[in-house]
Amino acid sequence: MTYGQGRTYKKVEIVGTSSLSIEDAIQQAVSRAQKSLEKLSWFEVQDVRGHIGDDGKVNEYQVVLKVSFELK
Amino acid sequence: MTYGQGRTYKKVEIVGTSSLSIEDAIQQAVSRAQKSLEKLSWFEVQDVRGHIGDDGKVNEYQVVLKVSFELK
Amino acid sequence: MTYGQGRTYKKVEIVGTSSLSIEDAIQQAVSRAQKSLEKLSWFEVQDVRGHIGDDGKVNEYQVVLKVSFELK
Amino acid sequence: MTYGQGRTYKKVEIVGTSSLSIEDAIQQAVSRAQKSLEKLSWFEVQDVRGHIGDDGKVNEYQVVLKVSFELK
Amino acid sequence: MTYGQGRTYKKVEIVGTSSLSIEDAIQQAVSRAQKSLEKLSWFEVQDVRGHIGDDGKVNEYQVVLKVSFELK
Amino acid sequence: MTYGQGRTYKKVEIVGTSSLSIEDAIQQAVSRAQKSLEKLSWFEVQDVRGHIGDDGKVNEYQVVLKVSFELK
Amino acid sequence: MTYGQGRTYKKVEIVGTSSLSIEDAIQQAVSRAQKSLEKLSWFEVQDVRGHIGDDGKVNEYQVVLKVSFELK
Amino acid sequence: MTYGQGRTYKKVEIVGTSSLSIEDAIQQAVSRAQKSLEKLSWFEVQDVRGHIGDDGKVNEYQVVLKVSFELK
Amino acid sequence: MTYGQGRTYKKVEIVGTSSLSIEDAIQQAVSRAQKSLEKLSWFEVQDVRGHIGDDGKVNEYQVVLKVSFELK
Amino acid sequence: MTYGQGRTYKKVEIVGTSSLSIEDAIQQAVSRAQKSLEKLSWFEVQDVRGHIGDDGKVNEYQVVLKVSFELK
Amino acid sequence: MTYGQGRTYKKVEIVGTSSLSIEDAIQQAVSRAQKSLEKLSWFEVQDVRGHIGDDGKVNEYQVVLKVSFELK
Amino acid sequence: MTYGQGRTYKKVEIVGTSSLSIEDAIQQAVSRAQKSLEKLSWFEVQDVRGHIGDDGKVNEYQVVLKVSFELK
Repeated sequence: MTYGQGRTYKKVEIVGTSSLSIEDAIQQAVSRAQKSLEKLSWFEVQDVRGHIGDDGKVNEYQVVLKVSFELK
Repeated sequence: MTYGQGRTYKKVEIVGTSSLSIEDAIQQAVSRAQKSLEKLSWFEVQDVRGHIGDDGKVNEYQVVLKVSFELK
Repeated sequence: MTYGQGRTYKKVEIVGTSSLSIEDAIQQAVSRAQKSLEKLSWFEVQDVRGHIGDDGKVNEYQVVLKVSFELK
Repeated sequence: MTYGQGRTYKKVEIVGTSSLSIEDAIQQAVSRAQKSLEKLSWFEVQDVRGHIGDDGKVNEYQVVLKVSFELK
Repeated sequence: MTYGQGRTYKKVEIVGTSSLSIEDAIQQAVSRAQKSLEKLSWFEVQDVRGHIGDDGKVNEYQVVLKVSFELK
Repeated sequence: MTYGQGRTYKKVEIVGTSSLSIEDAIQQAVSRAQKSLEKLSWFEVQDVRGHIGDDGKVNEYQVVLKVSFELK
Repeated sequence: MTYGQGRTYKKVEIVGTSSLSIEDAIQQAVSRAQKSLEKLSWFEVQDVRGHIGDDGKVNEYQVVLKVSFELK
Repeated sequence: MTYGQGRTYKKVEIVGTSSLSIEDAIQQAVSRAQKSLEKLSWFEVQDVRGHIGDDGKVNEYQVVLKVSFELK
Repeated sequence: MTYGQGRTYKKVEIVGTSSLSIEDAIQQAVSRAQKSLEKLSWFEVQDVRGHIGDDGKVNEYQVVLKVSFELK
Repeated sequence: MTYGQGRTYKKVEIVGTSSLSIEDAIQQAVSRAQKSLEKLSWFEVQDVRGHIGDDGKVNEYQVVLKVSFELK
Repeated sequence: MTYGQGRTYKKVEIVGTSSLSIEDAIQQAVSRAQKSLEKLSWFEVQDVRGHIGDDGKVNEYQVVLKVSFELK
Repeated sequence: MTYGQGRTYKKVEIVGTSSLSIEDAIQQAVSRAQKSLEKLSWFEVQDVRGHIGDDGKVNEYQVVLKVSFELK
């Protein structure tokens, strides 16, 4: 990558979910977004939330993140 | 809805306007966004602003909100 | 522009870069976004960052901004 | 009320919902909280969100608020 | 309005109150501020709070807002 | 769940700790809170901190979170 | 205290008042909360406000703070 | 005071300084503001800063606060 | 300037505009405010926004800033 | 540890990276910082970001954290 | 001091503690930091917290502050 | 640069000043910091402030920024 050449990026906000872990929720969201957007470059976590099942176990992590990709 | 199945959502930021009320500005924005986006699931108000007419009356509410929909 | 007629705007978050100045990074991002989005109306700066070269000079300004356009 | 007499207040965070309006969601939450807490003195809105139905109409306002009451 | 002509605005922070609704509290504050300030152009809501009466009803909405007007 | 029926939720702030992971600290807090509160519905992470042992290893994750439950 | 043993804490938000000082308002709130809650471990100041009397003197400091205690 | 009668307040931001204490800096600012504004009702601390002398002693507390008064 | 003598400052929020640069928008606002307020001492940038013309060029920078002056 | 004896701590902001997990990125940063700073006592996570590889997999977690140690 | 001569300052974040008062915790931190850093110019309070003893008394104020000094 | 190899960065907060422009204040701070710290990689602007001279001209821009460098 060469700095100073006027690249432009777009940031899109998505929410990934997973029953396993925060990291898996991030990866799920990134994989899904990659399908309909350009190649993603980086992500930034905005918020971590989740759902609690009837048995008192966390059964879903919900991670709000921004993903960025270059506008070519 | 079943939790823990790796759903992914996208959040989009829009601004609705109305001369009537804050709630109407929200509905206007949701209705307009629904036309070009997927079925919307929920919204989050980010900011409430507005314009004041020459007669000193609020003649427009402007509500910045994020709307979310599932990426299927 | 007439107030109170239910216009709706969309906000998109982009990152512009320039080796010259903060203002140029804003303009670069606006020009690039204009190509693929509707006519842009206004922008809001979210963050100013940059890269520092081996010679200790700022060689790139990176400006995160939101641009807005009317959904017609 | 006399100022300077060492009163102490407690703040509790609640979420009210209503299909009608933001104001009604606030009142619903206040009425419900009043049942199990002391007499409430004031509220502060923290967040306004909502749910969007299949017909694209806002069918629920969700208002996060803090309510305060004196610890006597 | 012509852009780029060096207009300057002043923002003033006020609190409006009303027993009716959030919108009415905004209008009350705008009407009152209009009396002693220049013609107001726009407002931005900062905070929504309120008082709860002995009967558990919201008897006053208090809306903190900034109003802006041009310094001519 | 039916939307628009005036449900009310309460949010409580708790801190969970664990020597294993952030996810375990969340689950520890949720499990403990479930004992003395109503059935919990969701959580929101507020802050992640931790303690560092004499050997330079993270020996405790401390996660501040809000848990929510319906006031029936 | 041993780290890494899964302790859980609860945070409660209270407002202390005093005509003397900020420190006294904190102590007043802590003392009052101690009566109805478990033994408190630490506090965090959220906000400092106050009332001004007719003579232009601050006649009450109001300190919003969170107090924390272990859920045993 | 009667709630729900459409009172309007104005908030003004001031900075008070004192070599003695945070409380004294608040009082200094309130006393000075009282001279040129209406009777003040309450204050909210925004920021606490200060200057350090050559001898390493804090020689000035600077408290940024908002003071509010009714627009009659 | 001597520290610790109980000086009091007032902060006023203004918005400057310029077609040239962020710095020029700051200077325009400061120059205009200086006309009707006391001698200004310092400024703090709150927000940078702007308008985009039909040709896709930034034709106005709008800088929200607070300016401060001593209340003598 | 005895409370109230005038201990002083310093906080330093660092960024840890890892291809494995958020927890590992925290530990990497703590281990590295321990080499050149005093014995660290606790950490606070400020931000979680990461890099996405060409294959659409998160290949690096970047955790911004503050670490604290006593100034003896 | 002459303005506009390209001075550079460094900010360091420290935590001071005291059993007496918030002001004393600030002074303790400033005095300790002065020993190992350059001559300090000003401080900014970031956070006020504290510890509560078994007798329900605040036995330690903990003030997080940033101190600044010129890099000569 | 290879991602995922456990690099660690340190962030330091500095304030640069210049009578010319915001960009120059950034460069001044980066150049000065480079002298006593490792090779800097990137910067993030935190705050833009400035001083106003007796003639009502901005005579100094003060930019608070964080600079980052790798801990090798």
